[in-house]
Amino acid sequence: MNAPRYERVAVIGVGLIGGSFARAFKAAGACAHVVGAGRDPKNLETAMALGVIDSTATTAAEAARDADLVLVATPVAQIGQVFAALAPVLRPDALVSDAGSTKRDVVSAARAHLGAALARFVPAHPVAGAEDSGAAAAKADLYVGKRVVLTPLPENAPQDVARIAAVWETCGARVSRMSPEEHDAVFAAVSHLPHLLAFALVHELAQRPDAPRLFSHAASGFRDFTRIASSHPEMWRDICLANRDSLLAELERYLASLEPFRAGLEAKDGEVLVKLFAEARAARARWLNGVLDG
Amino acid sequence: MNAPRYERVAVIGVGLIGGSFARAFKAAGACAHVVGAGRDPKNLETAMALGVIDSTATTAAEAARDADLVLVATPVAQIGQVFAALAPVLRPDALVSDAGSTKRDVVSAARAHLGAALARFVPAHPVAGAEDSGAAAAKADLYVGKRVVLTPLPENAPQDVARIAAVWETCGARVSRMSPEEHDAVFAAVSHLPHLLAFALVHELAQRPDAPRLFSHAASGFRDFTRIASSHPEMWRDICLANRDSLLAELERYLASLEPFRAGLEAKDGEVLVKLFAEARAARARWLNGVLDG
Repeated sequence: MNAPRYERVAVIGVGLIGGSFARAFKAAGACAHVVGAGRDPKNLETAMALGVIDSTATTAAEAARDADLVLVATPVAQIGQVFAALAPVLRPDALVSDAGSTKRDVVSAARAHLGAALARFVPAHPVAGAEDSGAAAAKADLYVGKRVVLTPLPENAPQDVARIAAVWETCGARVSRMSPEEHDAVFAAVSHLPHLLAFALVHELAQRPDAPRLFSHAASGFRDFTRIASSHPEMWRDICLANRDSLLAELERYLASLEPFRAGLEAKDGEVLVKLFAEARAARARWLNGVLDG
Repeated sequence: MNAPRYERVAVIGVGLIGGSFARAFKAAGACAHVVGAGRDPKNLETAMALGVIDSTATTAAEAARDADLVLVATPVAQIGQVFAALAPVLRPDALVSDAGSTKRDVVSAARAHLGAALARFVPAHPVAGAEDSGAAAAKADLYVGKRVVLTPLPENAPQDVARIAAVWETCGARVSRMSPEEHDAVFAAVSHLPHLLAFALVHELAQRPDAPRLFSHAASGFRDFTRIASSHPEMWRDICLANRDSLLAELERYLASLEPFRAGLEAKDGEVLVKLFAEARAARARWLNGVLDG
């Protein structure tokens, strides 16, 4: 599916996510010009120097004024004020999307601040990321094969949703759709909870008097299990607070699910343990083999 | 430090661990001949075909009879019966080591079954592994830069401990020493608990009616967090049972450590959350940068 060409794309927040979008969209020949805006002038300079964007604007409003496509890729906590700045200046035909990891809060912010442009805002969550951040980390293939979840609003025209889907598909992504509520529940389970669990494990070990010895014997299993504990603290504070209810529910559920493991250990019941482990391993193998994909 | 050359090394259990040892030790020119024994004739054939070993024996005793170095790299649950088979046939000068992931149980098995050879058994845990298994997965560089923990016995002569240390250093490993009790406590924290937590998360999600949708939105963070949930169920049953007390204690500790995270979420306390996340991230960064190594 080819996205129609856009004349002028505004990317508000030219970090890994916004910058990689700019690179991918330009590489696909889907736009004539990308203008970037953001709070860090150094980062914008880097983005210019690396060819991630074609020009810079000093404010989000200035960047978006003449754009026919606007991607808001700032931290979610800033998104309300960005929407407020955009609302008065957006072209009447401009499409707007975002890249937030949570969706109920972004939709609330859009309803509060986007005014007449609300109907042309199609919320999106590109499920990609890395420990690296900033424009310097942007790469054209970040979204290839990755999932982008759209959480369309009742106000959206179907053709606008289709156009935003095409925009992300142009970047190589696999696009799916769900409601903002479904989105936040799904990602509480498969992303936000694992982050919390990994942060907690590293934190717990780091507190101990023998932390140096413990860490010095941690190996690749620990490294991978805790990789997401190197994620950005402020970003994850915002995600956790935005998705608090779902995340608390997932945490309770997880704690309950540990009980049969604990009880099996307590009772020295090898049969129970091997069954639980084998079921988990089989489920993960099905996932990796794509059987559970759908 | 160079290990003295060995004439004939017996590897009992030619899987990833034993096979990689054989490859590494041969590649280093540290032995003239490696004989392999194991329960699966197909696997031994593969090991021969790939040059992992130089000859095969039909039993552990036959392999070990003329060996001056014996590595027992079977699953830990079999190690007692292997020791019992070796005890009557070992050369009086043969050194014996193992590759078990738990050490108190291996030491108990050695005390029960190795008889007069006990003093020449230096327990070891090479901290390396992968999801792949079998002789076909063996590689000469598996131990390069990896940790091998020796848990020497009071009966061991210091020069025998030094020789086994040199054996593993010859394979490229960094050797450290602690008591079997310390070893099992450390690995309960940095390895066994994370495995349990990862198995439990995958198991919990797989039980749900909407598991296909959940898994289809899981991304690289989830993949890495749960990689160890693809570990071998029987092996991990044995590890969990062998290290039950330490693992139960670590689980309780971890559950308690989750409480400030839960409470911060419950109270919508962004300051608490960002502090916990930042401390965890900083501790992980120190670990990766080697500051905590020691």
